[in-house]
Amino acid sequence: MTKLLVRNIEYLADQGGVRQGDIAIDGATIAQIGAVGADWRPDQTIDGTGKLAIPGLINTHTHAAMSLFRSYADDMLLMDWLKTRIWPAEAKLTAGDVYWGSQLAIAEMIKSGTTTFADMYFFMSEVAKAVTETGIRAVLARGMAGVAPTAQQALAESEALFEEFHGSADGRITVMLGPHAPYTCPPDFLTKVVALARKLGAEIHIHLAETAGEVAECQTAYGKSPIALMDEVGLLDCGVLAAHCVHVSPEDIRIMKNKQVRIAHNPGSNMKLASGIAPVPQMLEAGLTVGLGTDSAASNNNLDMLEEIRLTALLHKMHSNDPLAIPAGTAVELATTGGAEAIGLGKITGKLAPGYKADIVLLDMSGLHWYPRHDRLSLLAYSAAGSDVHTVIVNGRIVLENKQLKTIDEERLIYEANTRGLRLVR
Amino acid sequence: MTKLLVRNIEYLADQGGVRQGDIAIDGATIAQIGAVGADWRPDQTIDGTGKLAIPGLINTHTHAAMSLFRSYADDMLLMDWLKTRIWPAEAKLTAGDVYWGSQLAIAEMIKSGTTTFADMYFFMSEVAKAVTETGIRAVLARGMAGVAPTAQQALAESEALFEEFHGSADGRITVMLGPHAPYTCPPDFLTKVVALARKLGAEIHIHLAETAGEVAECQTAYGKSPIALMDEVGLLDCGVLAAHCVHVSPEDIRIMKNKQVRIAHNPGSNMKLASGIAPVPQMLEAGLTVGLGTDSAASNNNLDMLEEIRLTALLHKMHSNDPLAIPAGTAVELATTGGAEAIGLGKITGKLAPGYKADIVLLDMSGLHWYPRHDRLSLLAYSAAGSDVHTVIVNGRIVLENKQLKTIDEERLIYEANTRGLRLVR
Repeated sequence: MTKLLVRNIEYLADQGGVRQGDIAIDGATIAQIGAVGADWRPDQTIDGTGKLAIPGLINTHTHAAMSLFRSYADDMLLMDWLKTRIWPAEAKLTAGDVYWGSQLAIAEMIKSGTTTFADMYFFMSEVAKAVTETGIRAVLARGMAGVAPTAQQALAESEALFEEFHGSADGRITVMLGPHAPYTCPPDFLTKVVALARKLGAEIHIHLAETAGEVAECQTAYGKSPIALMDEVGLLDCGVLAAHCVHVSPEDIRIMKNKQVRIAHNPGSNMKLASGIAPVPQMLEAGLTVGLGTDSAASNNNLDMLEEIRLTALLHKMHSNDPLAIPAGTAVELATTGGAEAIGLGKITGKLAPGYKADIVLLDMSGLHWYPRHDRLSLLAYSAAGSDVHTVIVNGRIVLENKQLKTIDEERLIYEANTRGLRLVR
Repeated sequence: MTKLLVRNIEYLADQGGVRQGDIAIDGATIAQIGAVGADWRPDQTIDGTGKLAIPGLINTHTHAAMSLFRSYADDMLLMDWLKTRIWPAEAKLTAGDVYWGSQLAIAEMIKSGTTTFADMYFFMSEVAKAVTETGIRAVLARGMAGVAPTAQQALAESEALFEEFHGSADGRITVMLGPHAPYTCPPDFLTKVVALARKLGAEIHIHLAETAGEVAECQTAYGKSPIALMDEVGLLDCGVLAAHCVHVSPEDIRIMKNKQVRIAHNPGSNMKLASGIAPVPQMLEAGLTVGLGTDSAASNNNLDMLEEIRLTALLHKMHSNDPLAIPAGTAVELATTGGAEAIGLGKITGKLAPGYKADIVLLDMSGLHWYPRHDRLSLLAYSAAGSDVHTVIVNGRIVLENKQLKTIDEERLIYEANTRGLRLVR
């Protein structure tokens, strides 16, 4: 087991606030933090001077391989975007495209400080391969559309994905089931998903209440909200990561609290697609678990979680007409501990504390925007940039060192991603 | 006169779209763009391969020296923030503090692609000194509060600033008059400002309609909106750069159009302070000139104009419930040509075209977030980061080369800014 020591670093303490000390890492796990005993004999020492250590950021909702569609189609109506651009391009996707598109996303996430992401897409064994190779942590779900001819195949693939990859890559991969959304998965299909979830002991990742139109359609078809409908089919008893939850009522929030539904809030994507604003302050007030996500690079258009932290703080101040809403510390918490809990990994990541996995990001504070140093938490939330990320450790392994990727051939990645991305839209 | 050649670069063409070619710079001015004749003999050649040239970004509203208060006070109510934190700290400011605080802001702006900024503060000859030395372009205004005991002095200082610095530093400095806002400058004081503006031929930079409270107070005191009040005192006939204009009515917009008032839109600051959302799509529809600004780093908390471009595009899509609102091209235009027109420099900067000043930013497109290359304008608006800025030319002079500041001693700057910033709040 490799022993690492990060020396003389300022770090975001589990108890809140920023402290100075050392971090001892034993294999995949944080062994000590703060005062590390002189008897700790590391194999490698990292100098933390001038850097800020934070828990690796958790991207709770994305479709990694869609990075291949970054900048392909913007400033469009959602259905027009899907029907005329995204779906035709997705129909051409090969397994290899998904592998390289996922690697592009993973590389960008690592470089901007994300150590864990929750993904929903297809050709998911390719995504698992990219995750295994690159060293990042991930929660993978095979997206399933119950209305599609592939519905049965998607269920079978989901089961196979779970059997093959759940707990694999030294425990870095977790598998969930991914019914896409209530409007693509009718109740009879969802019943099958719930049965499979119970059989496997798998949790569920689903899009819920993203747009007003979706909620209205659900009311018309079933006489209830998407949240209430999901409750009725038993889905919410499986342990649910629900992306978006933009259009939810106080009653929906009560149901979600009761069933411990965890929310992936995607402010950048919700703003860009004009979907609306999720009532995050109300969710937090109700005691719900909320994490942050980028959604895909096709609707964001980058995977920089520091941007989502800042957007979350700004968006909810503006929307609630209250400059005290979502203060810096809360925004950072949502992207770390909140995110880890949202994806079901709150006991192993999202915190810098002994016993937690060593998922650690070191930010270089030498940039001008980190001065003066009145308040490091404020600087992190309101001033920092993804490009400040200097070193990234996942599961005790250094995957980014001095801003250089250690597990990815960046030159080949760029060639493959660009060539494949351009081919898909020809 | 130094001759520069930027070779083999993709550039944001004046006619829209991205083209490939060369840029010839003769002294302070763009001489040719696109196909540069073989007879052009440059003193220095810059290789533009893999880079995107854009017009230098225009920050139409900031208080540069307030960078010293970055991260000092966040997540507070505006009046609480001003009264308990900002004003007491500002009372301690020395001329030297303003010089170093301004240099901190200028360095950060250059590094993130801003070539011109409009500033309103005090000790403005110190700001002029920092502008002169660093090579950036600026529009300076001595902030004046008519209700303060220093009101007469501020008028005198404004006149002296204009006489000494307007058109100085090879024409890089322009001076405006800076009455702070209607709520700090009663009509009788504004009448004096208007008289001085006419005498000097100076334009005016002012905060207008930033908060709902300000507008309500103005209605109570004068029976009209701040815009209508400014029109009544003759201020709008001087050529006005109006910061914020968040709470404006359709009638206010008609007045502003009629008087050719130009708006500095500050989405980040407006969101963070929960001031509201300026009706930018409606302003553009009415034919108003709109530029973007960061406001100060105390309420933002960085000076990255690429963030403001993205926020503008996202915020107005969300607010108007229309994903087609403020598309990528419009957001970029607001930060370039729109900004240049807003600050009264539309004939010399904001465009890459022969005859315009050589205010040029080269973005390094090698980052992963610049792939695939479906649409460079989309990548610029939705994916790019300030840290992608590689080379910055202002008035024909290279002030940033390979991400290194050429006119600023960064190490000393950081020491002075940090020490002074921390001292001010002790």
